[in-house]
Amino acid sequence: MSQSQTLTRVRMAYARIDAVDRPEIWIDLRPQAEVEAEARSIDERLTAGDHLPLAGRLFAAKGNIDVHGLPTTAGCPAYAYTPEADAPVVARLRQAGALVLGTTNLDQFATGLVGTRSPHGAVRNAHDPSRISGGSSSGSAVAVALGIVDFALGTDTAGSGRVPAAFNGIVGLKPTRGLVPTTGVVPACASIDCVTVFARTLPEAEQALAHMASPPDRALPSLPRRTPGPWRIAVPPREQLGELDEGWAEAYEAAVIRLAASGADVRPLDLTPFTEAAAMLYQGAFVAERYTAVGSFVDKAIADGVDSLDPTVAGIISRARDIPAHQLFADQDRLAALRTRALTELADADALLLPTAPGHPTLADVAADPLGENARLGRFTNSTNLFDLAAVAVPAGEVNGLPFGVMLIGPAFTDDRLARLAALLQPETLLAVVGAHLSGQPLNPQLLSLGARLERTTGTAPVYRLHALRTTPPKPGLVHVGEGGASIETELWRLPAEGLGRLLTALPRPMTLGSIELSDGTRAPGFLCEPSALEAAPDITEYGGWRSYLAR
Amino acid sequence: MSQSQTLTRVRMAYARIDAVDRPEIWIDLRPQAEVEAEARSIDERLTAGDHLPLAGRLFAAKGNIDVHGLPTTAGCPAYAYTPEADAPVVARLRQAGALVLGTTNLDQFATGLVGTRSPHGAVRNAHDPSRISGGSSSGSAVAVALGIVDFALGTDTAGSGRVPAAFNGIVGLKPTRGLVPTTGVVPACASIDCVTVFARTLPEAEQALAHMASPPDRALPSLPRRTPGPWRIAVPPREQLGELDEGWAEAYEAAVIRLAASGADVRPLDLTPFTEAAAMLYQGAFVAERYTAVGSFVDKAIADGVDSLDPTVAGIISRARDIPAHQLFADQDRLAALRTRALTELADADALLLPTAPGHPTLADVAADPLGENARLGRFTNSTNLFDLAAVAVPAGEVNGLPFGVMLIGPAFTDDRLARLAALLQPETLLAVVGAHLSGQPLNPQLLSLGARLERTTGTAPVYRLHALRTTPPKPGLVHVGEGGASIETELWRLPAEGLGRLLTALPRPMTLGSIELSDGTRAPGFLCEPSALEAAPDITEYGGWRSYLAR
Repeated sequence: MSQSQTLTRVRMAYARIDAVDRPEIWIDLRPQAEVEAEARSIDERLTAGDHLPLAGRLFAAKGNIDVHGLPTTAGCPAYAYTPEADAPVVARLRQAGALVLGTTNLDQFATGLVGTRSPHGAVRNAHDPSRISGGSSSGSAVAVALGIVDFALGTDTAGSGRVPAAFNGIVGLKPTRGLVPTTGVVPACASIDCVTVFARTLPEAEQALAHMASPPDRALPSLPRRTPGPWRIAVPPREQLGELDEGWAEAYEAAVIRLAASGADVRPLDLTPFTEAAAMLYQGAFVAERYTAVGSFVDKAIADGVDSLDPTVAGIISRARDIPAHQLFADQDRLAALRTRALTELADADALLLPTAPGHPTLADVAADPLGENARLGRFTNSTNLFDLAAVAVPAGEVNGLPFGVMLIGPAFTDDRLARLAALLQPETLLAVVGAHLSGQPLNPQLLSLGARLERTTGTAPVYRLHALRTTPPKPGLVHVGEGGASIETELWRLPAEGLGRLLTALPRPMTLGSIELSDGTRAPGFLCEPSALEAAPDITEYGGWRSYLAR
Repeated sequence: MSQSQTLTRVRMAYARIDAVDRPEIWIDLRPQAEVEAEARSIDERLTAGDHLPLAGRLFAAKGNIDVHGLPTTAGCPAYAYTPEADAPVVARLRQAGALVLGTTNLDQFATGLVGTRSPHGAVRNAHDPSRISGGSSSGSAVAVALGIVDFALGTDTAGSGRVPAAFNGIVGLKPTRGLVPTTGVVPACASIDCVTVFARTLPEAEQALAHMASPPDRALPSLPRRTPGPWRIAVPPREQLGELDEGWAEAYEAAVIRLAASGADVRPLDLTPFTEAAAMLYQGAFVAERYTAVGSFVDKAIADGVDSLDPTVAGIISRARDIPAHQLFADQDRLAALRTRALTELADADALLLPTAPGHPTLADVAADPLGENARLGRFTNSTNLFDLAAVAVPAGEVNGLPFGVMLIGPAFTDDRLARLAALLQPETLLAVVGAHLSGQPLNPQLLSLGARLERTTGTAPVYRLHALRTTPPKPGLVHVGEGGASIETELWRLPAEGLGRLLTALPRPMTLGSIELSDGTRAPGFLCEPSALEAAPDITEYGGWRSYLAR
């Protein structure tokens, strides 16, 4: 990273904060001049030869995580305290050269999966402002999704590091409990809270997590070696998923098919212990741990009429005071039994694949039924930390123009394995070829070497003309003309998105890639050419395709 | 996969075998009609609902692996026998729906890393026929690299599953000893032989390997959990790499930088135990195991004047008869000590990164010095199986227009982890933007969401004109005109190749992506547009860039 770049990135980020006009993302933003000074210092240290693997990376911290110089509020200004130091997780990232821009909005005391329970305002979804961001790590997820920061810290007790990832189309890593220290974090349920990370890509999130994790200061449990053979993905029967938003069952099924196509064995799993434990998180005695954390503050604040309390959150925490200990013993017993069943279900699988959430409500939906909508959102995430499992939430396409996300859940300490599996969900794409890349033609091996497979032979919509270009090897130039065009013979190939990117990187002038209209009305990326190449290039449309022209 | 596709793929493969005109790839090719009949049967089973995860995938098997219906020759026709069944590894792949096309050429008795030691002829490199393919799994690697088959089986004792991967620009997985059965494989050094797999992409290779590996029929060793924190990559000091081909040290250093940029910690490692053990493979007593395998056949064949013996291979094996057992005891002792040192060196790393080979000789080089060139090629690979380690060989760019490859080596049973690390070496690319994707412009978040980072601001070469298109949001159209052009303000972004592929997939007409000439004489993929979009689009070149035009 060149000397000026850290500073440039900071300036771009603050410009972007203004441009997106989403003030509810932030609780406290550091002054730009202060961050710029830190950027200059990073640049100087780089010049001096310091090893700063995260130099220039910008991040945000959820407002329940200590950032030195800013108050820690957990979304409740009356609760605020001034931390004496960064939380260790923040300190580790800054030591590696990353810069923190500020603290982000959250469901107060990290109590909620909606992102609306905050005196700083409901956080609107990055893609559709009428929908919720998801929570409780709402501001962090939206700051990442809108490209303000490279990554952001969240926390996850019931799913707060995953549900907002799904709703905003980004990656959320929920590490195994204990891998990342929770020191300097306002507890929600202290025994099961995790610090998480959001990023737009899996490698970016993994890189940040690598620096957040604790060094080995004690004997580590050893990880059972994976059974050799294909990846084994556990999938519950459709009816156990319950009611999903329209199109979500199909999107989930597509992710299952995607993993199967990557060679994974798909096997059934009984989801019952997972969903039964999920229901216990708020309905049972475990919610009393939230009272342990901040209950006496909340009770006093209610009595004092503090107006920055969120009424829904205050109600949940305050009511938890009266839960008897005997109920907790009973619930712990029941959880242990459910966990044994869940681990047995997982025993012959590398991961459980689930939709991250069952649906994506609007702000209005949540306002109409704050508790009911929230409870529904946690159906798939609530049990993960109760069972001491690891999870990775990743985007898996879109439904009705909004992000759809899935989650891979596995045993404790299988974090890396889950990320590897999640990478298999990365997208494939189509490519329409009409010339030298057709099967049997000279450049076809280039496609093969990128992992492409022939999908089918078809034709363009009748709106193109084909010219014979003066290139070596000879290639045709396809040009969109609308009226007066013809259908040109086309092969549709399927290849990894990475392969398409590599093809483009190696593409010589005058060839270009654009969107081709096909005879069935769909579109696919495909080969076109620069306008200048068409000059003096004979029109060969009459042949109907490149192969017929060559065989003339 | 639709019903007709397996058959189509078989026909395309045979057509491609003819087209590439590399008869030396094959020892025995199955009759096309026989494979077509098998393809129809696969299609029928798919229609009937059979679970065939590798349906339609085509592969080749190295000529020392039993394929039912073909002779097993190990590259020596006089040695041929008719196997009664497929080797288990072949059978597992076929059971999963893959189709084997035939057996491939090899350095006779898998003795060599060059690919020239065969009565079926020297296998020419896929990219440059004047260079060696590498061996001993020569035909398998070239069949994959030329796009004839989806994957191919090799074997690896000294590096035969990795050196040809590097020379032909493909992936080679050398699994931990014992993960994949060697039953039905002609031994080279029976105690350390491994069956390997080549493919053009890492997921394709991993998918095949998943089906090749043995099911757990015994208690498996448990894998020590990774130390939390960044990936730790061990890298030897430059001078320990010895003499490398021109440009290879720089290409290797680029791979190190790539992993560091992905967040890995790079740490030094003493390569001495690895290279000392490497030298023992052929120079010491271990070569006697090759005599154990086929020595009596070779001695008799020499006595009988059999003309299909490769003289170099016959000499190596025949000379091994006289190695005394006391030397083997001494060598085993010395190897154990070297292994302890090597594992100590690896103890604080997840993997050792090395060039797969020190250089890429021509066919003429090897003809001039058959033993010397071969010995040099194994400098980095020879010790892997002696030390019972796992390895993954992947492409890492090009040097002088030829593939360059690196290898990640780790402890036994870390195969998945090494593949995960290898995936971090996947390519990034540049993207030149001149309009709505510029930082601060409306479509810039699209770049950010794909993981792009601003590299620098520059200009095009003075050969372009800029037009204001009638699109929503407003975008400029860049067009190459040569004479009469101007330099247009450009931002260069860096992003994963996958992100570029995804950008292209979502690109609407009339925008296209092509190769942009930059002011410094380099080129990068960047935005252009279809010719029809330029009609009635005002020429705004005089502003020097889109931002200046908007601010007019």
